[in-house]
Amino acid sequence: MAKQNIINRTIGVNFNNLGLADVLVWAPFTDKVLLKLADEELAIIKQEHGYFSLTTNKLKPGDQYQFVVNGKSLPDPASLLQPGGVHGPSAAFDLKAFAWTDADWQNIPLSNYIFYELHSGTFSADGTFKGIEDKLDYLVDLGITAIEIMPVSQFPGSRNWGYDGVFPFAVQNSYGGPAALQHLVNACHQRGLAVVLDVVYNHLGPEGNYFGQYGHYFTDKYHTPWGSAINFDDAGCDEVRRYFIENVLMWFRDFHVDALRMDAVHAIRDFSPNHILREINQHVAKLTQETGRTHYVIAECDLNDTRYINPLQKDGYGFDGQWIDEFHHALRVTAGGERNGYYSDFNGIADLAEAYQNGYVYHGQYSNQRQKTFGTTTEGINGRQFVVFSQNHDQVGNRMLGERSSRLFSFEMQKLMTGAVMISPFLPMLFMGEEWSEPNPFQFFVSHSQEELIEAVRKGRKAEFADFHAEGKAPDPQDQSTFENSKISWGLLDKGQHKVMREYYKNLIRLRKSQPAFKNTNRENMSVLVNEASNTLT
Amino acid sequence: MAKQNIINRTIGVNFNNLGLADVLVWAPFTDKVLLKLADEELAIIKQEHGYFSLTTNKLKPGDQYQFVVNGKSLPDPASLLQPGGVHGPSAAFDLKAFAWTDADWQNIPLSNYIFYELHSGTFSADGTFKGIEDKLDYLVDLGITAIEIMPVSQFPGSRNWGYDGVFPFAVQNSYGGPAALQHLVNACHQRGLAVVLDVVYNHLGPEGNYFGQYGHYFTDKYHTPWGSAINFDDAGCDEVRRYFIENVLMWFRDFHVDALRMDAVHAIRDFSPNHILREINQHVAKLTQETGRTHYVIAECDLNDTRYINPLQKDGYGFDGQWIDEFHHALRVTAGGERNGYYSDFNGIADLAEAYQNGYVYHGQYSNQRQKTFGTTTEGINGRQFVVFSQNHDQVGNRMLGERSSRLFSFEMQKLMTGAVMISPFLPMLFMGEEWSEPNPFQFFVSHSQEELIEAVRKGRKAEFADFHAEGKAPDPQDQSTFENSKISWGLLDKGQHKVMREYYKNLIRLRKSQPAFKNTNRENMSVLVNEASNTLT
Repeated sequence: MAKQNIINRTIGVNFNNLGLADVLVWAPFTDKVLLKLADEELAIIKQEHGYFSLTTNKLKPGDQYQFVVNGKSLPDPASLLQPGGVHGPSAAFDLKAFAWTDADWQNIPLSNYIFYELHSGTFSADGTFKGIEDKLDYLVDLGITAIEIMPVSQFPGSRNWGYDGVFPFAVQNSYGGPAALQHLVNACHQRGLAVVLDVVYNHLGPEGNYFGQYGHYFTDKYHTPWGSAINFDDAGCDEVRRYFIENVLMWFRDFHVDALRMDAVHAIRDFSPNHILREINQHVAKLTQETGRTHYVIAECDLNDTRYINPLQKDGYGFDGQWIDEFHHALRVTAGGERNGYYSDFNGIADLAEAYQNGYVYHGQYSNQRQKTFGTTTEGINGRQFVVFSQNHDQVGNRMLGERSSRLFSFEMQKLMTGAVMISPFLPMLFMGEEWSEPNPFQFFVSHSQEELIEAVRKGRKAEFADFHAEGKAPDPQDQSTFENSKISWGLLDKGQHKVMREYYKNLIRLRKSQPAFKNTNRENMSVLVNEASNTLT
Repeated sequence: MAKQNIINRTIGVNFNNLGLADVLVWAPFTDKVLLKLADEELAIIKQEHGYFSLTTNKLKPGDQYQFVVNGKSLPDPASLLQPGGVHGPSAAFDLKAFAWTDADWQNIPLSNYIFYELHSGTFSADGTFKGIEDKLDYLVDLGITAIEIMPVSQFPGSRNWGYDGVFPFAVQNSYGGPAALQHLVNACHQRGLAVVLDVVYNHLGPEGNYFGQYGHYFTDKYHTPWGSAINFDDAGCDEVRRYFIENVLMWFRDFHVDALRMDAVHAIRDFSPNHILREINQHVAKLTQETGRTHYVIAECDLNDTRYINPLQKDGYGFDGQWIDEFHHALRVTAGGERNGYYSDFNGIADLAEAYQNGYVYHGQYSNQRQKTFGTTTEGINGRQFVVFSQNHDQVGNRMLGERSSRLFSFEMQKLMTGAVMISPFLPMLFMGEEWSEPNPFQFFVSHSQEELIEAVRKGRKAEFADFHAEGKAPDPQDQSTFENSKISWGLLDKGQHKVMREYYKNLIRLRKSQPAFKNTNRENMSVLVNEASNTLT
C-alpha cells in the first residue's frame, strides 16, 4: 500500500511510471471492495486501517470506473473527474499528462497580490475555464496580479457557487474538468498571473455525498451550519486527515495553483494535539522544501484570532493570510450602507479606522451582536496577511436580491470605497465586474436534482433574510434564470460610466503598484486619525 | 455592579464589610428579577450584559432566598448552600465568617504529594465532613500528605459520587455544608495535610438544573457524554466563563483548598483564542500573586496532549499535573487483569515500561481502540506532573459490580501493584481503604427524585457494561443498599491480612518519603528495561 508522500498523490486512481493504475481506496466499514470497469470487476486487496489497494493494467486514463462496496456501485471518493455528474461513475485521469510550459514561472511575493475573485460559471458567456482563459489578456491589462477562482470541486448539476461540492479532488465537469483547469493555470502563468483556488474543507455538500458509505468521514461531535462536521479527530481521523492533506498538495503540485483560499476554517473543528489546519500548512512547507516552489494558503476565518495566521514555528496554524470581512462591514457602514444583521456591530468611520489600524475591528472589545468579548490583538502581524475588499461573492450574493455595490451606492461612493481598499496597508481584492460597476446581481443559485433538497434550499434561503429584507421576493435558487441573471455583462466594458469606472480602477491599480507608500503593508509606521464630523480619515 | 475581581467573590450573595448583602445574578433572558425573602420581594436592578444587582440589609447569613425569574421562584445559580436540596431555596452564607487557624500553613511542594482519594458519603459511617475529620489522625499516621475529596457541589438527594452536582458553588448539605468543609480544611492544615478538591466544569447534572432558565449556560455547538456542553465560547460566554473562574478562586481563597482536581477536561470545548482552562489557570496565578499562597490545579484528561500541562508562558493551559489512566491500564493488564473494553489497547509489561518512561503509554502510536494515531511526546515534562494509581473511584466504580483490586488480584499481586505505584517517578494516589485491602465494592449510586431519570440512569448503567461483564446483574444505583454496601470497613483495620497490608502500605509510603531515589520525579536519568519472559522491569 502506498504511504502518503509529498511528491505523488497516493489515494484514488493514479498512474505510475509504468503506466499502470495504482488504486487505493479507504473503506473501513467493509471487508470487500471491487473495482468495477466497463466489462469486468476486479477484487481489491484489503490492507491495514481499512485501506484497499490494487495495481492493474486494465484501467487507463479516460476509462470510467466505480467501486462496489456492500453491493453498491459508487463513485470514487478521490475521483478526479465525474463525467456524468456527482451520481455517475468516476473517470480515471492522469494528473501528470499535461504538457506544462510554465517552468520559468515563479510565484509573486504575497505583498504584490491584487486579487480578482471570479466564479467560473458566470464570469463568461459559456461559463467554462476556457471562457476565463479568453479574458486573461483583459485582466492583465486591468493590472490585477492574481485570479481567485471560486470552488471548482464537482458539485451537483451545472449551476452552483461551488460550496456544495462533494468530490474535493474532482474538477467540475461542466467547467471543463481537470485538463482544462491545468490549461487555464498554465495560460495564467504565461501571462504573469498567479492563480488562487478556493477550497472547502469544513463540510461536503448534501447531494451526491457517498462518503458515509465508505468510512468515518463525518463526526457528530460537532455541529456545522451545513450539516455533519468532517471527522478530523475521532476514530478513523488519520485517514480523513490524509485525504484532505493530499487534496491540498494536489492543487499545488499537479495543478500548479499558487495559493489556496480555504473556506470558513472557523467551522473546522479539531481537538487533536496538532490541528488539521496546522498539519496541512506543515505539509505545504514540506512540499516547498521538496520542489523549491512557493505556495500561499489564505484562510477565510470569522474568529479574529491570530492563532490561525501566526507562523508554524510560533505554534500558529501557519496561514499566510486571512480575509478581513470586518474591514468590508466597517467600510459599508461608513459609506452609508444599512446597519442590520451582521452590520449591527459596526458604527462607521471610527470602526473603519480600527480596521486600518488593526485589521480586526474587534480585537478584544465586547460585541453586542456576538454577545461576548471578541478578537485578539494583531500586534506584530504584517498587513500583507489581511485581504480586504469592498464587495465579494458572499457579501453581494448573500443579500436577498444579490445587489452589487453598483445598485446600492452612488457612482462617486463606489469610487471612494474602492479607493479605501486600494490604499489600505492590506491586500486588495476585487469581485468580477466591479471594475466596470457591473449592474447585474450575483445571486444564490443551485441545480440540485432532488426535489426535497431543492425545497430545503429555497426555504433556508428565505429564512436567512429575516434579518435583511422585510420586503421583496427572493429569487428561486433552482431557477436557471437566477444563474443567467448573475452573469457579468462584458458588453458594458467600453460604455459610458462603465468605461470611466474601469479606467479609474486601472489607474488606481497602477498607482498602488508604482507608489511604494500605497503598497506598504508594514503597519508599524502607520497612524490613522478619525474626523467624525466630516466622516473622514487622515 | 461589582466587576469580577481576585480577592472577593462577586456573583450570587456576598456580605460586604458593612455586613450588607451584595446580590448579583446574571439573567439575560428577562427584564425583571426579584429577590424573594421570607416575607417580601425586592426588585433587583438591571445592569449591562444581563446582570441584575442589589445591595440590601434585609438578607442576613442563614436566611433563605430565591430569585423570581419570569414568574418562577428559583434557587440562586451561585448558591453556597441548598439547605433543602437542589430544588429548594438557597441560603445566604458568609464565606468570610469562619475563624481560620491555619495562618502558618504553607502548601507542600507538589512533588511531595501522596494523594488519598475519598468519597465523603462512604468514607465514614455517618458520611459527613465531620466523619472525615475524625479519621485525619489515622491518615497522618498512614503517611499520606493530601486528601483528595470527590466532588462536594450540591447534587440531588444525599447519595451520589458527586459528578451530578448542579450548584458548583454550593457545598452538599448532607455532608455538612460550606461551614463544615471550611472546618475540615482547617483541621487538615493543622495536621500538615493538604486538601485536594475534585471539581466538575464539563457539564451540570440533570436534576435540579435551573441554569437554562437564567441564561446561555449551555451550547448545542458541542456534544458531551452527559448532555449539553457548557457554553465557553458562544453568545453569553463572558458571563459563563466568569462564573467558573469565580468558582475556582472561591475554593482556593475562601475554603483554603490547596489543589483542585478538574474532572474530564477533555470534554470542555472552547474555541476562544484563550481556552477557558488556560484563563482559569491564569487567574489562579494572579491569586497567588495577590495572596502569596501556592495552589495546584490537576486535570483529568484523556487526550495524552501536553498542551494541557505545558506552562502558561509556553502557551500551554498551565495545569500543574494530570491523571494518567494509562499507567493504571498497563499495570492491571500486566498484573493479569482482563483485556476487554478500554483495556484492549494494552498488552502488558512493555506498555508498563512505556508508562514508566513516558507517562503516556500512547505518545504517537496508532491505537486500535481509538482507531487513530494518539498522543504527544512528553519530553521535558517532569514526573511530578503525572498522578498514578493502581485503582481509583472510576476504575473500581465503573465495573458493573464495583469490585476493588482486593477481589480481583491475589494478596501478593495487590502488594506488587502498590509497589509499582509507590516507586514510580510520578505522584502516587491511593483510593480510600485500599491500604487495608478493603473487600467492599465501590458501586455507582444515586438518589434522584424523578422516576424517569432514575430509570434512565439504570438503563445507562446496564448499557455501559456491554463491553465488560456478560453475566451477572448490575446493582440498582438508586437503591440505598448500593450506597451502604460501598462504605469502607473501618472495623477491619487491625484484623489479620488487612493489618498486614496496612503495615505494608505504611512502610512503602515511609520508604518513598525517606529515599530520594523513590521520590525523584526527574525522569531524565531514568531507564526502564523490559524482560517479557519474566514479566519484569528493571
